[in-house]
Amino acid sequence: MKFVRYGRNGQEQPGLIDAQGRLRSLGGIVDEIDASVFGRPQALRGIDAESLPLVGGKPRLGVPFVGISKFIAIGLNYRDHANEARMAIPTSPIVFNKWTTCISGPNDAVLRPPGAHKLDWEVELGVVIGRETRFVREADALKHVAGYCLVNDVSERAYQLEQGSQWNLGKGCDTFGPIGPWLVSRDEIADPQNIDLWLDVNGERMQTGNTRDMIFGVAYLIAYLSHYMTLLPGDLIATGTPPGVGMGRKPPRYLQPGDVVTLGSPQLGTQRQEIRPAPQRPL
Amino acid sequence: MKFVRYGRNGQEQPGLIDAQGRLRSLGGIVDEIDASVFGRPQALRGIDAESLPLVGGKPRLGVPFVGISKFIAIGLNYRDHANEARMAIPTSPIVFNKWTTCISGPNDAVLRPPGAHKLDWEVELGVVIGRETRFVREADALKHVAGYCLVNDVSERAYQLEQGSQWNLGKGCDTFGPIGPWLVSRDEIADPQNIDLWLDVNGERMQTGNTRDMIFGVAYLIAYLSHYMTLLPGDLIATGTPPGVGMGRKPPRYLQPGDVVTLGSPQLGTQRQEIRPAPQRPL
Repeated sequence: MKFVRYGRNGQEQPGLIDAQGRLRSLGGIVDEIDASVFGRPQALRGIDAESLPLVGGKPRLGVPFVGISKFIAIGLNYRDHANEARMAIPTSPIVFNKWTTCISGPNDAVLRPPGAHKLDWEVELGVVIGRETRFVREADALKHVAGYCLVNDVSERAYQLEQGSQWNLGKGCDTFGPIGPWLVSRDEIADPQNIDLWLDVNGERMQTGNTRDMIFGVAYLIAYLSHYMTLLPGDLIATGTPPGVGMGRKPPRYLQPGDVVTLGSPQLGTQRQEIRPAPQRPL
Repeated sequence: MKFVRYGRNGQEQPGLIDAQGRLRSLGGIVDEIDASVFGRPQALRGIDAESLPLVGGKPRLGVPFVGISKFIAIGLNYRDHANEARMAIPTSPIVFNKWTTCISGPNDAVLRPPGAHKLDWEVELGVVIGRETRFVREADALKHVAGYCLVNDVSERAYQLEQGSQWNLGKGCDTFGPIGPWLVSRDEIADPQNIDLWLDVNGERMQTGNTRDMIFGVAYLIAYLSHYMTLLPGDLIATGTPPGVGMGRKPPRYLQPGDVVTLGSPQLGTQRQEIRPAPQRPL
């Protein structure tokens, strides 16, 4: 099942993508794409997608599910990315935080904060937790996954790396967490360690990778994290980016207003973000 | 107003502490201590606390408000604490994250995770945001505060400092965020930079401080954070700890199961936590 939420920001309706790639409504069947839906694979088992109403037009797509209480991210989880970042290959997962106010639809604009000048991209596999998870073993961990989604771990490198040791100031600015277009249920992903990822800037290929090159795989990450905290249904883990980010280029290439980032995966769909300046006035 | 929530974990009822320190019920007047209550100081202005029903017995106190979507914490915000931690005095706020699953009642047990062996304490002033806040100026920032509360920023130093550069693995384990007993509304705190804080372990005084010694004050912190993210009503900022933590002692003193931590402030009330081993079984 490929879950989506479509409609204006804050007014999204539940839907799914059928086998022909068409958007269909789940309205009247479920109220939201939340843990009561994605956390229980049997919940929609009887549904015949072809019988659901087609949704006309090209509505905006929102974040494909709700209930992200923790947006956890893993740093330097591909060797070639650690090398381009000129940082050591980690011996245990590097865990950081994206503030949940950064969460954004897959095609919404990315807003460059005032004063930011090292805005960068990171295509990643996102893992969505399906049930409460604590002290799970690696061998059992994938059973706790509801599904997978595409994430752009947007990063302002000056805020991340030049203002003290902690990264999260540059990882969680508003709009720095585009998620979607789909939440792909676990049963549709035969192997989370064989997912192709790519990212373009203004049509030029910047990142190409496959999750088989992760240092710490999905099951290990879930087991590891569940030692340090209880994972809740809806919690999202961004599993790290393959090489090809802007700060790794010579010379570095950072995003400017007007640039367009597209990213995708055959299994997870595509995103498109235009870079715009953030409004500087107080709300 | 001193808001509280009382009752079993997950079944807390809204209440307040009256001028004589007695617990009274707000049931029937409000459903929850949430942003619709603490974010609108006028909401309860007509209430005569003395007319509310007294609550008998000694019920458990929970976290005094709900709706903490971000639990933000500031590191090394007192010079003498930075010195005892043998870290540099920060030139800008060090911002880290406490995972929201760490949130815990003020007197609930602190669970030491399996393998943890450097469990430490940090008494702090917590600041509760009252309304949506973005790009606020320091001069206006305190108007965005709903109130204040006591926080114990419980920390496992081995997880925080010995597993890579990012601190949050040792800051957000389950039960590492005792909050309360009260949410003290802003009008009752004449000056957030003049709040006494203390912490004892097994009756021995370990920390004594006053928020006047912060490097970055409350108004500055709110303005600073609001540059990097939108603050929402209910977001909580733990503003850093004065000197006297376990890792700063010679030799270091870490918490063991059976130890009892008490902490408090004349303005914010007191907390008491017993240290217990975390259950190691999966949920």
